[in-house]
Amino acid sequence: MSKTIRQALAVPYEFPVVFTRDAFDPENPALADILALAPGGPHRLAAVFDQGLLRAFPDLPERLEAYLRARPGALNVAPPLALPGGEAAKNDLSVFHATLEHIFAARLCRQSFLLVAGGGALLDAAGFAAATAHRGVRLIRMPSTALAQNDAGVGVKNAVNFFGRKNFLGTFAPPFAVLSDFAFLDGLPARERRAGLAEAVKIALIKDRAFFDRLHVQRDALGRFEPDPYEHSIERCAELHLEHIATSGDPFEFGSSRPLDFGHWSAHALEEASGGSLGHGEAVAVGVALDSVYSRLAGLLPEADLERILEVLPALGFTPWHAGLDSLDMEAALEAFREHLGGRLFLSLLTGIGSRVEVNAVDFALMRRASDQLRERFA
Amino acid sequence: MSKTIRQALAVPYEFPVVFTRDAFDPENPALADILALAPGGPHRLAAVFDQGLLRAFPDLPERLEAYLRARPGALNVAPPLALPGGEAAKNDLSVFHATLEHIFAARLCRQSFLLVAGGGALLDAAGFAAATAHRGVRLIRMPSTALAQNDAGVGVKNAVNFFGRKNFLGTFAPPFAVLSDFAFLDGLPARERRAGLAEAVKIALIKDRAFFDRLHVQRDALGRFEPDPYEHSIERCAELHLEHIATSGDPFEFGSSRPLDFGHWSAHALEEASGGSLGHGEAVAVGVALDSVYSRLAGLLPEADLERILEVLPALGFTPWHAGLDSLDMEAALEAFREHLGGRLFLSLLTGIGSRVEVNAVDFALMRRASDQLRERFA
Repeated sequence: MSKTIRQALAVPYEFPVVFTRDAFDPENPALADILALAPGGPHRLAAVFDQGLLRAFPDLPERLEAYLRARPGALNVAPPLALPGGEAAKNDLSVFHATLEHIFAARLCRQSFLLVAGGGALLDAAGFAAATAHRGVRLIRMPSTALAQNDAGVGVKNAVNFFGRKNFLGTFAPPFAVLSDFAFLDGLPARERRAGLAEAVKIALIKDRAFFDRLHVQRDALGRFEPDPYEHSIERCAELHLEHIATSGDPFEFGSSRPLDFGHWSAHALEEASGGSLGHGEAVAVGVALDSVYSRLAGLLPEADLERILEVLPALGFTPWHAGLDSLDMEAALEAFREHLGGRLFLSLLTGIGSRVEVNAVDFALMRRASDQLRERFA
Repeated sequence: MSKTIRQALAVPYEFPVVFTRDAFDPENPALADILALAPGGPHRLAAVFDQGLLRAFPDLPERLEAYLRARPGALNVAPPLALPGGEAAKNDLSVFHATLEHIFAARLCRQSFLLVAGGGALLDAAGFAAATAHRGVRLIRMPSTALAQNDAGVGVKNAVNFFGRKNFLGTFAPPFAVLSDFAFLDGLPARERRAGLAEAVKIALIKDRAFFDRLHVQRDALGRFEPDPYEHSIERCAELHLEHIATSGDPFEFGSSRPLDFGHWSAHALEEASGGSLGHGEAVAVGVALDSVYSRLAGLLPEADLERILEVLPALGFTPWHAGLDSLDMEAALEAFREHLGGRLFLSLLTGIGSRVEVNAVDFALMRRASDQLRERFA
């Protein structure tokens, strides 16, 4: 007595992630090449800049303007908008609304571009506006921090916090392009540049032994942020994140989310408990160390591999232990992490460098021993 | 000096569109079958009902509750929420926000269900909330009007109006399932049931001659809303819309939108100019008649085909002319339609019943003659 029609669709996405230096130098074709990917142009463009980025590089809006005069791939139609970055950008809807107003005032249509240059939080909030105005204008992300260039800024999500819940409101929406300018990183304090290296170590450990070997060999140069090894680490880390999204089979996470989260269950809790004094990268370095020692104690990871991990982290400038571990309610932290994944717990452990296994439970006594060993060695 | 990584993704969607009668009858397996499509259930569920639908069927919330007790495919976790339907649902963010609060209070996660029963406007506004809360909870649409069951409720879009612009804010987001209950249509005034027939004629004319032949043969029974032909017209119209979305190659309209819009350029303008006195279906009937006569005057459509079109519309209860045509600024209306498509103008004209051609311009003198001919015959 019922009739059923089965609807099936596949939506293809393709976008370039470009790494360059001095993107607004008129000699640099990268941005013009991106704009030329849109048929029927030049289209309208409006820009949003992170106030933090403008403090380091106040002339970016004029340089973008000059670039588009020299290479008229898009019509720069609105005065640039400067908005706050950092978690404040996501804590209420004001950055989202301001971006919507910018899109509306600039009369952008679905074929137009919104260029957003900033850290991961601004990319998230302004990206949510770009994804929902006219059901999506073309977003060009220019991530301006190491963590945004090698992780947060290359993915397919956006979000703002709502009802006091992190990332409650958002969409899955691949960008039109990502353009990462290494010169932006020169404006960052050492601590923020270092943060990117923690994600590089994390993803190398679970995905790519050769990359870890390279990080290990170059660890002292990386600790000094020497451009060649440092920029390679950003690129390769981004590339591994991109591969994971493309090959996971579920880029929009319709099933249980299984992100590349090695070491992140304790990192999230430590970061939150520290009230912001521990940065994300610093917390990830501690979490990676903890789950590496646990992997060893559980008999999964060879001792020699663990030693190399615990050599790399300090050389990069991280302390692989934090006093917050002593007071951490590990059961609660793991449960919060499971809720964040939105389904069953999947925790990655190392079986070697570049290889992992997923487990669904943790031996908390063993995890405490792992924390104790890190305290003894690094406190 | 730049390095480019090309990211490519394909996101697959699959969802059933089910036509049934008395969906909340515990003997009817349709809803339970839909809930069983989600692995790992039973999951949490919260419901939103259109106040207009509840006026006709006040006991729907209790019947849903009883259904889920009898067939525990989901955990009905929240008191049902009643929200206004009609364009008012979309004119500000209040319905969107109320739905977000409902999702939050019911502690739905990405694996949970939001069931929304209502007309196209409520499905749009509450659907936008479902698509953005946690980046998307599972939306079960139960369209409650003829137009929602055969057109608006089976697509992949949602939206609310913002900055005074229709559908300014929204996303492309396929539902988890569509469940159309023909019993809902029994509660509608004749005028709203008739509205669905205008879209059926429209899509038959451009896509399916056999469907038009059937509408033509059954036109008197359809004019009386006899269940068998009427419900078939709803199903077949929905099926043709679904086919178009699945086979267009661009379901999320990244390029210029080319919807199934035969007769809609004047219909939109007439509906707006009438201040609501002309319903969407009535306006579409006039627009379809106008572009059919124009197609004939342009030498594209055989006279015999036009005659059958002009026989069907009055038999279904439509007047294929409206006084608003005399005062219509056709140039402005066509330009507004082009802007709505967001790119170049594509207008469908008929070359026969079930076949069309796309043109990029209109001969306004000829269009005036088409309007005059309709006035002479039907005024």
